Amino acid sequence: MAEITTDQAYSQITKLGAEPLWRHYGDLFHPEPRSAAVPHRWSFSDLRPYMLHFTETLSLEEAERRVLMLVNPGLADPPATVNSLFAGIQIIMPGETAQAHRHTANAFRFIIEGESAYTTVNGERVHMRPGDLLLTPGWHWHDHYHEGSGPMMWLDGLDFPLTNSFEAGFFELFGDRTQKSSVPDDFSSRVYIHGRLNPVWETPQTASSPVGNYPWSETERALAAIGDDVDGSESEGVVLEYTNPWTGGPVMPTIDCRILRLRPGFVGRPARTTASTILHAVRGRATVEVGDTTFDLEPKDILAVPGWARYRLDCASTSDDVVLFAYSNRPALRALELLREEALAD
Amino acid sequence: MAEITTDQAYSQITKLGAEPLWRHYGDLFHPEPRSAAVPHRWSFSDLRPYMLHFTETLSLEEAERRVLMLVNPGLADPPATVNSLFAGIQIIMPGETAQAHRHTANAFRFIIEGESAYTTVNGERVHMRPGDLLLTPGWHWHDHYHEGSGPMMWLDGLDFPLTNSFEAGFFELFGDRTQKSSVPDDFSSRVYIHGRLNPVWETPQTASSPVGNYPWSETERALAAIGDDVDGSESEGVVLEYTNPWTGGPVMPTIDCRILRLRPGFVGRPARTTASTILHAVRGRATVEVGDTTFDLEPKDILAVPGWARYRLDCASTSDDVVLFAYSNRPALRALELLREEALAD
Amino acid sequence: MAEITTDQAYSQITKLGAEPLWRHYGDLFHPEPRSAAVPHRWSFSDLRPYMLHFTETLSLEEAERRVLMLVNPGLADPPATVNSLFAGIQIIMPGETAQAHRHTANAFRFIIEGESAYTTVNGERVHMRPGDLLLTPGWHWHDHYHEGSGPMMWLDGLDFPLTNSFEAGFFELFGDRTQKSSVPDDFSSRVYIHGRLNPVWETPQTASSPVGNYPWSETERALAAIGDDVDGSESEGVVLEYTNPWTGGPVMPTIDCRILRLRPGFVGRPARTTASTILHAVRGRATVEVGDTTFDLEPKDILAVPGWARYRLDCASTSDDVVLFAYSNRPALRALELLREEALAD
Amino acid sequence: MAEITTDQAYSQITKLGAEPLWRHYGDLFHPEPRSAAVPHRWSFSDLRPYMLHFTETLSLEEAERRVLMLVNPGLADPPATVNSLFAGIQIIMPGETAQAHRHTANAFRFIIEGESAYTTVNGERVHMRPGDLLLTPGWHWHDHYHEGSGPMMWLDGLDFPLTNSFEAGFFELFGDRTQKSSVPDDFSSRVYIHGRLNPVWETPQTASSPVGNYPWSETERALAAIGDDVDGSESEGVVLEYTNPWTGGPVMPTIDCRILRLRPGFVGRPARTTASTILHAVRGRATVEVGDTTFDLEPKDILAVPGWARYRLDCASTSDDVVLFAYSNRPALRALELLREEALAD
Repeated sequence: MAEITTDQAYSQITKLGAEPLWRHYGDLFHPEPRSAAVPHRWSFSDLRPYMLHFTETLSLEEAERRVLMLVNPGLADPPATVNSLFAGIQIIMPGETAQAHRHTANAFRFIIEGESAYTTVNGERVHMRPGDLLLTPGWHWHDHYHEGSGPMMWLDGLDFPLTNSFEAGFFELFGDRTQKSSVPDDFSSRVYIHGRLNPVWETPQTASSPVGNYPWSETERALAAIGDDVDGSESEGVVLEYTNPWTGGPVMPTIDCRILRLRPGFVGRPARTTASTILHAVRGRATVEVGDTTFDLEPKDILAVPGWARYRLDCASTSDDVVLFAYSNRPALRALELLREEALAD
Repeated sequence: MAEITTDQAYSQITKLGAEPLWRHYGDLFHPEPRSAAVPHRWSFSDLRPYMLHFTETLSLEEAERRVLMLVNPGLADPPATVNSLFAGIQIIMPGETAQAHRHTANAFRFIIEGESAYTTVNGERVHMRPGDLLLTPGWHWHDHYHEGSGPMMWLDGLDFPLTNSFEAGFFELFGDRTQKSSVPDDFSSRVYIHGRLNPVWETPQTASSPVGNYPWSETERALAAIGDDVDGSESEGVVLEYTNPWTGGPVMPTIDCRILRLRPGFVGRPARTTASTILHAVRGRATVEVGDTTFDLEPKDILAVPGWARYRLDCASTSDDVVLFAYSNRPALRALELLREEALAD
Repeated sequence: MAEITTDQAYSQITKLGAEPLWRHYGDLFHPEPRSAAVPHRWSFSDLRPYMLHFTETLSLEEAERRVLMLVNPGLADPPATVNSLFAGIQIIMPGETAQAHRHTANAFRFIIEGESAYTTVNGERVHMRPGDLLLTPGWHWHDHYHEGSGPMMWLDGLDFPLTNSFEAGFFELFGDRTQKSSVPDDFSSRVYIHGRLNPVWETPQTASSPVGNYPWSETERALAAIGDDVDGSESEGVVLEYTNPWTGGPVMPTIDCRILRLRPGFVGRPARTTASTILHAVRGRATVEVGDTTFDLEPKDILAVPGWARYRLDCASTSDDVVLFAYSNRPALRALELLREEALAD
Repeated sequence: MAEITTDQAYSQITKLGAEPLWRHYGDLFHPEPRSAAVPHRWSFSDLRPYMLHFTETLSLEEAERRVLMLVNPGLADPPATVNSLFAGIQIIMPGETAQAHRHTANAFRFIIEGESAYTTVNGERVHMRPGDLLLTPGWHWHDHYHEGSGPMMWLDGLDFPLTNSFEAGFFELFGDRTQKSSVPDDFSSRVYIHGRLNPVWETPQTASSPVGNYPWSETERALAAIGDDVDGSESEGVVLEYTNPWTGGPVMPTIDCRILRLRPGFVGRPARTTASTILHAVRGRATVEVGDTTFDLEPKDILAVPGWARYRLDCASTSDDVVLFAYSNRPALRALELLREEALAD
């Protein structure tokens, strides 16, 4: 073999399906993570008129699930909002329904505006109000219906970038357009939400939370109960995580959901985490530095915080509490021993 | 050796510290458990006058912790209420305090009457109101103080029969009579109780729940939220277990605490469990069959239900909801793979 | 009520099933554990002749399971060897069988002498040789048969003091005198013991180890592989714990089994643990201090080490390795958060 | 807004960073997974001469780690062998060393040929022989040295496609070229491998197995002990998984490693799993159907089995046992609740 040149050898092994690692090493092993995602803000007020527009110009047949995908400029194909995760904004109008189906991707809805719609999740009708967090964990049947009068909009969070990346995505139609109700309406939030009390006669069905709806009214009570004399974390203030009643852990195996409450004047300590995060402004106006960019968040805006980016929350110029909803792929990273989190110097 | 008789041999081995198992087998291995405890009811109204009496006749020096031990007639020495568990009724009067200490025994208080007292648990002042469940898990410092006006009474639940049975009991005095407050008052119930939301900036310190107080107001909200159209279990109706927010499991490693709500007319299916249980009537009047005995529970009464005894809850003649508080050694039995539970035929 | 005396009040509440805690407090809460068990050694060579005697003078009908119970002088009624645990020495003679049964008590056998007997555990015939550790976890059917020529003796370890203390003991006869073989002989040790390799096509059936026999040949290989340049722990030298292949944890939920190898001249650092331990000398002569007593262990002797007793292993005057088999209730204490262990000053 | 066309609206929202989900739905949600990887076989005998060639023509400076990456034809950029996983073949020559480093990617080596080399993993020198499985779990320092006489080759397995896909890859040089030895040579396999015995004085440091080397000699003993009368699984025969002694689970959080032994004439039942698998022929010749393709595996060949592909193992025409080494991303999928496995009809 010594008679052939190195280039000839490279060419030959390519034909055999091999490549020299030493020519690619630096591309594969980095001193620290580089996210393909970029920090990015989506303005809700800019997008809202188009969402209404599509309800007028496109029939349900043309666009049954009217969701605007928030595509990170660095993650166009396949589309994602940050690593592992997707954010979209969905709108439904009175009288509209969506065909019942299920997928292995885990999903939730965080309600932005509107009332009197419900989703049916594995036979439970779950009603929605602004600020509510509704879960449709992987492989749970779900559909929805809108009995109210105005547009209904919510933030759709899914992990299909993760399930697709693992080539583990399944999808199935229910058959009938909608599911029948098989338990009392809002059963799970009625029996699971209050006072840390578990319904002993129920049995966990999956690793995900059985709670269909974590209503905003309870989140507000929690924030009120904590009051003003509790500081929370240096970086993020009072941070509350929605939990699975059977485990105390995250609501779904790959996604955690949190509420952050920042006091007027709060300036967080910079931090970074290998988890990729999506923030949604529920109330108030915060400034968020991510990497080299500073974003002013208006209410209802959505912000992509790539993994391992330095970020800092700043409410120095706000006069009211800021409340943020955040979700990330932290549970997946923790389960795979890939989570690193650290506070940084100012 | 053949020259000695069997009786001589028995006598000789006894001197060597041995005994023939075949002469004791039937005493050690039973077809099914026989509890030394007997079903027994303690009448709160009968005991209450004596508790007040002792506050008048005995100084704090003579009886610092005025607790009436509810001693099961079958478990006199050492005293216990049922297997593994103790129930007592404690009274404190305005201005009284108790010396700060800790023990490996796990303990809780379920408040029966009175207001304006607090206990300090590991530096957190925890206030008490009727129906509240307060925890003092093993090896947590605790003391109490009464700033109110009338007598304050509660049910004391402990597992010292279990910790003593395992010869694993430690006890220590704090030194100072009372602890200083080191976190905001009622911190833990403010940050842990509402909406299934966990304070992310906190870290679990023990295997026990970090919640100082599960207030009755929240338990009532839970029962109200569940409403009338949910049946719960065939044997016990709507049964809610107080949970550890970090695990979703029992509040302490050896004791679980539950609330049962029985509708007027409810007649439970008979059942039995190897767990030993103590019931306390919070509201309403129920009839409880345990083994061959039938007990009429008046409000605030306490009932011992020995392990593996057939029991049946009966509200056929009640016109209001019955609410029971129950605690048992189920978590210990489950951890040791000794829990068996079954429904029985009517 | 003020008109009655305190003594009258005491008398009255006794009739109501209550006792004043303040008169018993010191009996129930101790600064540290006091074991009812005492340190005690049983001489195997003293007991052996009596065991043979009983095989000659008592028929199988009179003494089907010829087990000498090693009863701790402090734990006579009910009998136990240390807290939670029992040790016995069993003898079977050629041709003898024992009726198949099961009990919730967990059990093991550590073989002392003899060959060519087997036990059938849930349908698997498990053969025995000296030094082998055989498991019969709770509620596993078991019987035995002796096809060899001389007496067969083993150490029986059980946790019936613990299961009885929790009033959770069940016992059942199989019906037929012996079980049929339903898997290949010694299946579990063949597929589970070697090289840390798990048989993927098998499924855990219980929380206990599925291994019927941890053969001495493998234990010896382990000790040989470790060799002489590894020190192990300061108190106990090289300590190896038999593990459940599915969990890496103890072989049964309430009992751990360990091998200790002490080099000639080894003098361990004193230590204590709330776990109660039974030692059995497999090889060599060690001196063991327990509390205030010093014991010289001859091969095959058995020693009770009560919980929280200071103990120290001493091989200063031995010229060969000492090998000890040890079992304790450590897993139960750990599961209930009652385990404390500490090294002490010399 | 109604005055603009739908196309104009699409164009406008694109500028705002959004896309209509309804135009992409079918690309993102599939009835079942489609792997980008294709079934592919790499011939060891074809690649071996080139590996030797590179050792002659390239200096260590030019190619310090001489690894041929086995790049799946469907997974070129970034390169991977199957979803989540990488396989490479590494060669080192006598006297060669490699610079000590660590990375968050988990890695192992399965030795193909050569002797007298060792790797140092976190201070432990681990020697290698053919058939040995050596672990270098994430963030463990490692380097290697070859003191023998011929070429040393091994299969390198890593999960950097997974860690990079999660943007959680870190890499660090040790500083010195090689680590110093800090524990006895081959310490971990000496104390952890034999007889299911755990060294009690050691403490788990990570979620990965502490075993540096699972030697082939032990794997062979395991296979010999199982013998010929055990069938194992219908699809894969006798399948043994290398386990973490502290957990009984997989050796690393994202990768499991297994040995399959197929008897001559064995024809497996077809199956599929969402796990992506790489097979390596240790001994014998097997035929493997993957999807629509049939591969004849020669000893030392490597085969990519994409997730959810139907596969079938066939030894109908072999006269000796076939032994395969297999690794997959099953632990990651299981942790994220994405694992589905099923047997198929013939």
